[in-house]
Amino acid sequence: MSTVPLKNDRLIKALLRQPVDRTPIWVMRQAGRYLPEYRATRAKAGDFLTLCKTPELACEVTLQPLDRFPLDAAILFSDILTIPDAMGLGLYFSEGEGPRFERPIKTEQDISKLAIPDPEQELGYVMDAVRLIRQELHGRVPLIGFSGSPWTLATYMVEGGSAKVFANTKALMFDRPDLMHQLLDKISQSVTQYVNAQIAAGAQAIMIFDTWGGALNTQNYLEFSLAYMKQIVDNITREHAGQHIPVTLFTKGGSQWIEAIADTGCDAVGLDWTIEIGEARKRVGERVALQGNMDPCVLYASPDRIRQEVAHILESFGKGNGHVFNLGHGIHPTIDPEHTAALVNAVHELSARYHED
Amino acid sequence: MSTVPLKNDRLIKALLRQPVDRTPIWVMRQAGRYLPEYRATRAKAGDFLTLCKTPELACEVTLQPLDRFPLDAAILFSDILTIPDAMGLGLYFSEGEGPRFERPIKTEQDISKLAIPDPEQELGYVMDAVRLIRQELHGRVPLIGFSGSPWTLATYMVEGGSAKVFANTKALMFDRPDLMHQLLDKISQSVTQYVNAQIAAGAQAIMIFDTWGGALNTQNYLEFSLAYMKQIVDNITREHAGQHIPVTLFTKGGSQWIEAIADTGCDAVGLDWTIEIGEARKRVGERVALQGNMDPCVLYASPDRIRQEVAHILESFGKGNGHVFNLGHGIHPTIDPEHTAALVNAVHELSARYHED
Repeated sequence: MSTVPLKNDRLIKALLRQPVDRTPIWVMRQAGRYLPEYRATRAKAGDFLTLCKTPELACEVTLQPLDRFPLDAAILFSDILTIPDAMGLGLYFSEGEGPRFERPIKTEQDISKLAIPDPEQELGYVMDAVRLIRQELHGRVPLIGFSGSPWTLATYMVEGGSAKVFANTKALMFDRPDLMHQLLDKISQSVTQYVNAQIAAGAQAIMIFDTWGGALNTQNYLEFSLAYMKQIVDNITREHAGQHIPVTLFTKGGSQWIEAIADTGCDAVGLDWTIEIGEARKRVGERVALQGNMDPCVLYASPDRIRQEVAHILESFGKGNGHVFNLGHGIHPTIDPEHTAALVNAVHELSARYHED
Repeated sequence: MSTVPLKNDRLIKALLRQPVDRTPIWVMRQAGRYLPEYRATRAKAGDFLTLCKTPELACEVTLQPLDRFPLDAAILFSDILTIPDAMGLGLYFSEGEGPRFERPIKTEQDISKLAIPDPEQELGYVMDAVRLIRQELHGRVPLIGFSGSPWTLATYMVEGGSAKVFANTKALMFDRPDLMHQLLDKISQSVTQYVNAQIAAGAQAIMIFDTWGGALNTQNYLEFSLAYMKQIVDNITREHAGQHIPVTLFTKGGSQWIEAIADTGCDAVGLDWTIEIGEARKRVGERVALQGNMDPCVLYASPDRIRQEVAHILESFGKGNGHVFNLGHGIHPTIDPEHTAALVNAVHELSARYHED
């Protein structure tokens, strides 16, 4: 693993609520389809899964947005469904239909026979990508590793792919909570080992994406999603190579639960755009850093309007430490990269005054 | 219009926070695809739009769930997109793709030439259905009329149909708020006249569905969705034929804004399932009634589990007035009607003790 010191450590400092000169920014799905160079590499790979499973290509697309924009972090290019794939479900992508599993979870036996993968074996291609990216970064910015949350992964595993309603997953949860807990416990163990292997390979911060936690009611969210994210936070390697590894939890649609999320002991809470970040800071900002939270659709507006929205969010958070700028969800594939440039520049230019003494 | 007094007025009383003997229940999309008799009428109609536009058939499906379950209200069978259709956009349903408009809103001229429809003319088929349903109900239960919210209707009108991201609508909102306000103002005037015509024709309560308000940030929600729902609340006929007409506002994904929703002067606030109803009651329950809020997916679980969830929600709301039981969103097409029966019976049986002196 590269041991070059970080040239730009704004992200790590902001996640740990330490002083920085500018608010750091990275963009969820910053390595993605809105970039022509990504689409070229994707075409070269032939299919999405090959792109994920070839460390050189995953490294290439991870670095692409950094060559275009002065972003303050790289995020590993991968897919949240690599874990269920390694657990034996057989991931494939069918054109136009998104991710599918050959062997979704249908029975008690399916759950009991699930293996907890060895990340350096079944997920070795991810660890190779992490090592390669760290080497190629030469300490420019930190590398964020990530995983889906256990609940979010469970929805794909039980539905057999993407879903909107989660009928099967919720039927299992409501009718057989014991089985759902068995499943979530196995996924949590797998996620913990996976992110710890990423840290060992060189990931300098970890983010857990709970894309579908917001589909639960409060009671179910606490019991079936947040409890397992806490289990991961409790068991993540928090110090590595003399550095603290910040952990960020992000539940889309979870702004009503940010106090409980902050109580897990994570370092930062990711916010979607439905909450004013200033209000979130009042509620939990003394305990955790906050990441977010511009509506990704603002990037469809003009550069001037983008700048105005950045100004609003920076002002809403206000002076002081603990803000990582981001969108409230992944960047859409039809965004003009010039608008992303306008966003990144606006954050750096307009944030300086919030970090003066 | 029928002037038979209501035999069952629990819904109206609960919406006005008056005492009742049982918590009333109705189910969003209670007349829908989960019922075999609905599918038969739908097949007879040939297509969905014919079903909406033929008063006898709309009446038939409106009454079907009441013949199966002891529900406390009927809700007009119609579609929220009848208004944009009447405004000249040309609604059609393409198989597998959902609703589409022949002439979506693309330019400033498209907005300026939009007509505000005369509900008894362009939407006369809806008013005929309301009159027929009132006649056929013979006062069994009250009839709820409804409309989509201006923001929600605008998303369909600008996107040209269903969307997930609302790229065009939000680009218009962020870049040309003046035009978006012109559009929303015209829709609000149309909605107001439409629901007032429903009231004149016999609707005894009104519900405004803001299905997509939850996709906005707080500032945008207040300015582009809630302000126009308030405009409707301000201009709705609140007294008709000696009766108060309760108005319910429902923003899916809007639980963070219920104080602001209650402040519009509406009678009741609809809740999705992501908030504990007891918490919502503490926040706004002295000002408005609350409608909701079981996760529709609970109906995939066993009748025993459904009963347990009903008990939890009734206990969370607690004793006293102002609760209308419902799901937190429309019932899914794959629900077993026997499970719906279990829900309705559980609400009536278990709620009695919350209404004793």
